Amino acid sequence: MTPRFAARMDRVQPNAIGELLALGADPGIISFGGGYPDPTLFPAAALEAVFSEVIRAPGGLSMQYAPSDGLPRLKEQVAALMTADGTPCGADDVLILQGSQQGLDFAAKMMVDPGDVIVTEDPTFLGARIAFDPCEPAYAAIPMDAEGMRMDVLAEVLARTPRAKMIYTVPEFQNPTGVTLSLARRKRLIEMANAHDLVVLEDTPYRQIRFEGDHLPTLKSLDTQGRVIHLGSFSKVLVPGLRVGWAVASPALLHKMKLLKLAADTQTSTLNMAAASLFLDRHDLSAHIDLLRAAYRRKKDVMLDAIRRHFPQDVAVTDPEGGLFTWASFPEGFDATAFMRDVALPKARVAYVPGGSFFPVTERPNHARFNYSAQSEARIEAGIAALGAALKAQM
Amino acid sequence: MTPRFAARMDRVQPNAIGELLALGADPGIISFGGGYPDPTLFPAAALEAVFSEVIRAPGGLSMQYAPSDGLPRLKEQVAALMTADGTPCGADDVLILQGSQQGLDFAAKMMVDPGDVIVTEDPTFLGARIAFDPCEPAYAAIPMDAEGMRMDVLAEVLARTPRAKMIYTVPEFQNPTGVTLSLARRKRLIEMANAHDLVVLEDTPYRQIRFEGDHLPTLKSLDTQGRVIHLGSFSKVLVPGLRVGWAVASPALLHKMKLLKLAADTQTSTLNMAAASLFLDRHDLSAHIDLLRAAYRRKKDVMLDAIRRHFPQDVAVTDPEGGLFTWASFPEGFDATAFMRDVALPKARVAYVPGGSFFPVTERPNHARFNYSAQSEARIEAGIAALGAALKAQM
Repeated sequence: MTPRFAARMDRVQPNAIGELLALGADPGIISFGGGYPDPTLFPAAALEAVFSEVIRAPGGLSMQYAPSDGLPRLKEQVAALMTADGTPCGADDVLILQGSQQGLDFAAKMMVDPGDVIVTEDPTFLGARIAFDPCEPAYAAIPMDAEGMRMDVLAEVLARTPRAKMIYTVPEFQNPTGVTLSLARRKRLIEMANAHDLVVLEDTPYRQIRFEGDHLPTLKSLDTQGRVIHLGSFSKVLVPGLRVGWAVASPALLHKMKLLKLAADTQTSTLNMAAASLFLDRHDLSAHIDLLRAAYRRKKDVMLDAIRRHFPQDVAVTDPEGGLFTWASFPEGFDATAFMRDVALPKARVAYVPGGSFFPVTERPNHARFNYSAQSEARIEAGIAALGAALKAQM
Repeated sequence: MTPRFAARMDRVQPNAIGELLALGADPGIISFGGGYPDPTLFPAAALEAVFSEVIRAPGGLSMQYAPSDGLPRLKEQVAALMTADGTPCGADDVLILQGSQQGLDFAAKMMVDPGDVIVTEDPTFLGARIAFDPCEPAYAAIPMDAEGMRMDVLAEVLARTPRAKMIYTVPEFQNPTGVTLSLARRKRLIEMANAHDLVVLEDTPYRQIRFEGDHLPTLKSLDTQGRVIHLGSFSKVLVPGLRVGWAVASPALLHKMKLLKLAADTQTSTLNMAAASLFLDRHDLSAHIDLLRAAYRRKKDVMLDAIRRHFPQDVAVTDPEGGLFTWASFPEGFDATAFMRDVALPKARVAYVPGGSFFPVTERPNHARFNYSAQSEARIEAGIAALGAALKAQM
């Protein structure tokens, strides 16, 4: 048969980057491509113990079906974490998700009719576009500087974009750029969302992994009108393989998101919710995050130092205050995709993510995203040195 | 703010049954409402051991991100299970899902534009309608008899329904009726799907839980044109709390479903996929299913025997060849929702699922679904006796 797909499927297409990155899975390649946390820092013994305890608990409750919006105890614990982080909320304000990625899917389903406009940073997280695309949005992409999304451009764009529905932002250590939205701009963004009646989708997977600088308030904590959907995740601070994240939103929005959760997959894994909950009861998550922050800071410093020594002088990189990524800007005319395919992978044996696909409207080929969390310090140095030599030979 | 929701959200509404069933969570109530497996039969010790082993495995791979379409080893194992069950396929034909519920969401997203028609059994699984509704389908509901969906009515309906896109069926021990689609009708259904260029969505969560009668071929195994999407699940044969299911489909369909998986939630939990996979390596799933079949058959017999002794004579129930449910038909004029609210819950202290909401087009109030897997044999007898006395007093 030739399937008569729904119209939305025209927007559901494979990404060329995925195929290129698949080549980076070769163990002989040093990959700075994925957004993987360092597996040597996973709290394996603690997780083994909590899984054993939840599976042995009387009545088999951790293996049974659970409430669609999440285990009550875990919702309480997430609310307590959020409240301690300056965003007061209660268990009823929390929806447990299959990773925060699922919140991107739900936010678009909830708000976006075909042709509605989602406003994003330029560049923005590729996974968000992949989640949004089945709802057939148009995009408006707002350029960034060292303080994040430029509010002057946002004001101009909103003034001429009546179909704008939602602003999507990763305010801390953004994926892909590593840039953080300043406090003044957070306040300005909320003002503009209020003025234009927009939903704000705040995606914070890296928020806790701060190396330096002030811990800034969430957009949700600055929201007085119930228009911010805050997404959080245990993927970067515990382990990604749990697939446990959450949304915090006003009752009107969260009510619909809970119905979408029931429709999409019934519930997140009871076992994983129970294990995350017991981990929080038995262990000090803050202390574990302190270890991650120290380790990722060292890796970031090793990568930036290596880049300064090995890359050509006209390659600029961001110096993130936290998170997993730095963003390289090559001279105009440099094609980071072609260089990866023709030189970096086959010759230098190094992978990164070419930046083009992070731009939702107009691709710019002379950028690349580098992850420093997944590789050891020695491999960071070796990979950047090899890539730098190849770049100097080429440029 | 008053959210400006997307149009699809008009179809995303709470179900009155959910609120009624929430009352059934009172431990003083004997509930035949949910579709829960018996937690005393969960293989807890085996699962504890496999979780420990996968978490301890070198490199932390079971806690890390994994391929979006599923762990390669688990896809191989699912393909081997399907092949042994008479539906030959390979690992590349398998997509691992967050429970088979997620396959319902993906099938609708993939095939259904607003106003397209999904053909279902009448009554049908409520969770499927909840999954399909955000895609704004119309429904055509085909009455059933003891052999399942009536093919004469299906032929008539398809002849006058040019926008039909997909037929949804639970061919074995259907939810809610317990009825099984006969072999002759399976062949006829495939012929009609071919003639009208339809996708067939085959949902088989109970397939392995057969008490008696011939094990029938899957619709997928009768499909020569690549138009059947087969959904399977470990929820009923292992534990629901894992949330691991799968789809098997032709390359054209599976390719798009894989892209929807990446968009929806990146991947199913690596830990849970790894645990399911190791369970299949270390333990005999067939032997475990034999235990479930024997236990659920006894419970089904206890329930039907109790119903015959305690219910009024003019209440008819189905005698399922497997699965978790029997379906009661009360005399015309009986309102199973009102009776549950006014009598069964407050007086008899028994819950079931009133049948009305299982009918996608025209609700019929004089039916109810009874689950026999979750309660002990003693509580089945006690609950049916109490309900029978209340029915006799009322009817």
